[in-house]
Amino acid sequence: MFTIIGERINTTLNQVKDAVEKRDADYITNDVKKQTQHGATYIDVNAGARIGHEEEDIKWLLEVVQKATDLPLCIDSPDPAILEMAYDLVEKTPMVNSISLEKDRFDPMVSFLKGKECRIIALCMDDSGMPKSAEDVISRAKAIVKELENIGMKRNDIFVDPLIQPLSVDGNNGPIAMEAVKTIMQDLEGVHTTGGLSNISYGLPQRKIINRIFLVMMMANGFDSAIMDPLDKDIMAALKTGEMIAGHDNFCMNFIKSVRSGEIKA
Amino acid sequence: MFTIIGERINTTLNQVKDAVEKRDADYITNDVKKQTQHGATYIDVNAGARIGHEEEDIKWLLEVVQKATDLPLCIDSPDPAILEMAYDLVEKTPMVNSISLEKDRFDPMVSFLKGKECRIIALCMDDSGMPKSAEDVISRAKAIVKELENIGMKRNDIFVDPLIQPLSVDGNNGPIAMEAVKTIMQDLEGVHTTGGLSNISYGLPQRKIINRIFLVMMMANGFDSAIMDPLDKDIMAALKTGEMIAGHDNFCMNFIKSVRSGEIKA
Repeated sequence: MFTIIGERINTTLNQVKDAVEKRDADYITNDVKKQTQHGATYIDVNAGARIGHEEEDIKWLLEVVQKATDLPLCIDSPDPAILEMAYDLVEKTPMVNSISLEKDRFDPMVSFLKGKECRIIALCMDDSGMPKSAEDVISRAKAIVKELENIGMKRNDIFVDPLIQPLSVDGNNGPIAMEAVKTIMQDLEGVHTTGGLSNISYGLPQRKIINRIFLVMMMANGFDSAIMDPLDKDIMAALKTGEMIAGHDNFCMNFIKSVRSGEIKA
Repeated sequence: MFTIIGERINTTLNQVKDAVEKRDADYITNDVKKQTQHGATYIDVNAGARIGHEEEDIKWLLEVVQKATDLPLCIDSPDPAILEMAYDLVEKTPMVNSISLEKDRFDPMVSFLKGKECRIIALCMDDSGMPKSAEDVISRAKAIVKELENIGMKRNDIFVDPLIQPLSVDGNNGPIAMEAVKTIMQDLEGVHTTGGLSNISYGLPQRKIINRIFLVMMMANGFDSAIMDPLDKDIMAALKTGEMIAGHDNFCMNFIKSVRSGEIKA
């Protein structure tokens, strides 16, 4: 099953930032209910945009979001102290967004993760910067998965993010991401791969069609999770169709159900 | 570059059959001009549906179609005698649709092909029937490519058709087609892969979204040609976007051009 990490509760989005500032629980509740209804697996919660307010903002958000949904959360912060606090406030086993191989980030995150029950997004980032080739991505994926296994994490709980980069910067960034995902899913059997899709289309027009075609081309290489907007009908239709084509929809039942409900149109 | 074999001049389509019956050159001319404008690489010409009339019908069609376009044709018949006649009537090096490993079809087709300059669609079909697994498809692809190389054909002129089968019959037919194409493109370096896309969605609703998502997922595995309708705007938008993501669109120029002309919308 594809893991959809709903990306909408993020204070880098102006409407969410406003709602958090005003403590507008209705706005957040309504959005989270919609993400839940439209098929999110996790609700990502990121309160990083109001500098100096992250702690109080995420506390408030976690309470409101958990009242609105039974889904588990993806707690999203670069700060292990914030994650530690958020971890104690969540009711269901969360996903944590994220760890990387960058030295000043890796060690504190490992201390945080030790002995905790959670899933983790592992970025293929190290101190030399963004990966420059599929081989770069793959070697970093192997290194970070090894480190996480060393502290007792299971592969099924690790979501490797290959760090998708824009086609407008390098036309080879599509093949790099696809090749990396294919090899990671083969060589690190049991891990998942995930990522934010919209980087691929940065700087190009008509981004939504690029994002959804990229999603299914990644799925053809084994990609089995994404940080995405479950309220985008076109990408959800592409995802469900892609799941059926990839052999993950018994007797095409999900696809047919989604056609009947009007979610998928030709 | 992706090779688009325009499928619309086929007498199994009622409107085409009527036009051929009435010798309505305007209908055929108009359709072929549109396929040409919308990006076809070859125009497939099939006159097989009016039993007993194939010879006269294809003669007439080849004349009308070649007046309407400068594109090369894909001459499409199971009958080597018809192909022989058609081959003498075409002005540009044609593609031939098709050869298979079925004994009563293979030997006459090899006699036809010997010494001729053309490209060929090679179906992964033999006397035991449709392939039942990716391994089946792959072993047949290797056998037929070997035979064609033995009579002097070049890999670049061989378009292997893996024989796409419906998801409604077996949910594994998507993975079988993708796995087969990936391996064929790796192990038989230099050949092309092609096929009719719409079989995948046979028996399911909203077939067009299935066909176009399947197309790009196949492209993610190396599929580089299809027998398709270049007038279907949605599948052409998916194809162009997929070409860019697959790294075959320098500086995203084709994509951006298609956005500007209104052919691609998000």
